[in-house]
Amino acid sequence: MKLIPYNFKNEILLRINKIKSILKDSASDAILVASNANIYYTTGRFFRGYIYIPVDKAPIWFIIKPNVYEEEDGIFYIRKPEDINTILKSQGYDTPVSIALEENDLSYSDVIRLKAIFPDSVLTNGSPLLKKARMVKTEWELNEMKEDGLHQSKVYGEVKDCYHQGMTDLELQIEIEKRLRLEGSLGVSRVSGNLMEINLGSVISGANADNPGPYEFTMGGEGVHPALPVGANNSIILKGHTVMIDMNGAFNGYQSDMTRVWSLGETSDLALKAHACSLKILRKLEKEALPGVPVKDLYFIAMEIVNEDSLQEFFMGHKSQVGFIGHGVGIELNELPVLTPKSKDILEENMTIAIEPKFVIPQVGAVGVENTYIVTNTGLENITIFPEDIQKF
Amino acid sequence: MKLIPYNFKNEILLRINKIKSILKDSASDAILVASNANIYYTTGRFFRGYIYIPVDKAPIWFIIKPNVYEEEDGIFYIRKPEDINTILKSQGYDTPVSIALEENDLSYSDVIRLKAIFPDSVLTNGSPLLKKARMVKTEWELNEMKEDGLHQSKVYGEVKDCYHQGMTDLELQIEIEKRLRLEGSLGVSRVSGNLMEINLGSVISGANADNPGPYEFTMGGEGVHPALPVGANNSIILKGHTVMIDMNGAFNGYQSDMTRVWSLGETSDLALKAHACSLKILRKLEKEALPGVPVKDLYFIAMEIVNEDSLQEFFMGHKSQVGFIGHGVGIELNELPVLTPKSKDILEENMTIAIEPKFVIPQVGAVGVENTYIVTNTGLENITIFPEDIQKF
Repeated sequence: MKLIPYNFKNEILLRINKIKSILKDSASDAILVASNANIYYTTGRFFRGYIYIPVDKAPIWFIIKPNVYEEEDGIFYIRKPEDINTILKSQGYDTPVSIALEENDLSYSDVIRLKAIFPDSVLTNGSPLLKKARMVKTEWELNEMKEDGLHQSKVYGEVKDCYHQGMTDLELQIEIEKRLRLEGSLGVSRVSGNLMEINLGSVISGANADNPGPYEFTMGGEGVHPALPVGANNSIILKGHTVMIDMNGAFNGYQSDMTRVWSLGETSDLALKAHACSLKILRKLEKEALPGVPVKDLYFIAMEIVNEDSLQEFFMGHKSQVGFIGHGVGIELNELPVLTPKSKDILEENMTIAIEPKFVIPQVGAVGVENTYIVTNTGLENITIFPEDIQKF
Repeated sequence: MKLIPYNFKNEILLRINKIKSILKDSASDAILVASNANIYYTTGRFFRGYIYIPVDKAPIWFIIKPNVYEEEDGIFYIRKPEDINTILKSQGYDTPVSIALEENDLSYSDVIRLKAIFPDSVLTNGSPLLKKARMVKTEWELNEMKEDGLHQSKVYGEVKDCYHQGMTDLELQIEIEKRLRLEGSLGVSRVSGNLMEINLGSVISGANADNPGPYEFTMGGEGVHPALPVGANNSIILKGHTVMIDMNGAFNGYQSDMTRVWSLGETSDLALKAHACSLKILRKLEKEALPGVPVKDLYFIAMEIVNEDSLQEFFMGHKSQVGFIGHGVGIELNELPVLTPKSKDILEENMTIAIEPKFVIPQVGAVGVENTYIVTNTGLENITIFPEDIQKF
């Protein structure tokens, strides 16, 4: 089997060149990629191994396992990372003056071990460089994410069929999970870092929406066990409750992120008002979020609309509120840019961002819509197309 | 809400004292716990924060979020890890001469940031210390795992109902996933490190069993997408195929690990012989694996039986073989001890180990049984009780 299929070579070249160009602007003259997400980014595969990318030469792939790929130019099998040094020398690669390693994505022990391969090189942090490369998507990546959006929308179209009277939030979630899996969901939500742990998503309703959690998700929820305190807590969906569905969109190596709200019967006026506010924010940002606009402006625009509607106390949580209204999405659910008031990122064409202005209405549930968008020269392009009003069970 | 419920205080004290005693024997005089799994171990909760355990004083809990716990003696809310220093000083805690941090479980950046809280302390690796503490379970932990085993067995009892003629491995897996979730599975498989990624488990059959994967699982499998190359590849289960079911046992913060095999019609003599060999190994180890026995001996005993039956080429994989026959299990699926020929661990009472002598029979599938056992003074106690013969669909 070829490590990089013929029809994928140009795509990989594009990504490698992007990383090289970011390296060139940085203090590093080579990067050794080792985290799962970044190995997938630089090859379109997951293997156990490493990719060495110097600023001025061809990359080299080092594979530990599986033993299924052909060795060819630039592809070597190794037993352990220490073998990298010898191969680099045999291929005429100079020792880099500084080596970038994924300090935010690899364990301390792993970084120390990999750094020892380059004892004379200065260590720099490669994580932000790769995050930056991945922030702007290629056409190929955008198509993967559009495909995710289509699958996810299709399953959201079945949510009403999943519901039956007297159901708990968890039972509803399990039924949706099954449909997602049958539609091709890989069955995991790939997130970066240990501040987020989740199964196939979050279904929250009623009072549970106002249970704060430990993670960096917009919404909390008690969960069904202290071992995973997020989302559904197996409480029955009652009349007047809203049910916020924010379920997995990972059907290939990429993901889309989409939230919609259902309600059982009529819900409260406050919930309706807040939901309308969420839509107002999205409509405004869809026009304003153009390449060149500072990411932090999106946050301020949203807050202005929230303030006009006097909904501050419910926005992005109630008992506990988070300080962002969206985030990049791609191979991982939490990528750059993060839509915070402190962001220093500037919007660029082909960034992909999930915008999720959400409100927690005590005792009722959560409302608001989340779409995943592509930043284009004429505004945001929604790839998670599905009716946005609160729908009735 | 109390961080540590009244009826859980003694249990936590037991664990903290165990950690202190391991600290005493180590080069560290304090540990700062920060990883999710170890925060759960030391509190029975997941929160974002830290636990400081000095060898000679009471531990202190530092919580960032969620904001739901009462502050009481030894429990403090902080905004960022740097606040820890001031609080420790105000509580009369001396600067530790050496500080243990989870070097294998936290990112390089996190370790560097936490180390800066103790600029004058020597850094040591806390990961092996906590792994060692978690290796031997308390009665409370054993009960959690027994409960997992009961739930898991119950769902395995429904596997036959999940199957219908013409089904693919993936469709079967999805049906089992749904039953697991309805039975209380939390919907994630908690694994340590980035060498293992999996959804709710592995269902492999036919030729797919011999597809090597990148991860440290005993069995490979192609998966349904290169982004998650493990397990079912959506191929139809054919007559004569074996179907190995190794699905999620995580119903509380702990896990049990169990594998059983089904076949569609009669399977090959070689498969039957290998499966019988797996049972022979388990029966032997159930008697021999007593406290005081070196863990590596279990590996050698198993290999001797495999050699007697001349099944080496199929054992623990075929195209690609792994060098262990089992592993500790608990909060994470991959704990200590690891049953390798190089293990230096000695069996102790109340260790919990999954033993999984498995064989890959080309074109047929995988066979063998995996049980999770408690090490007792009279031999291994199986907590994953379920018929062990190859069952027919």
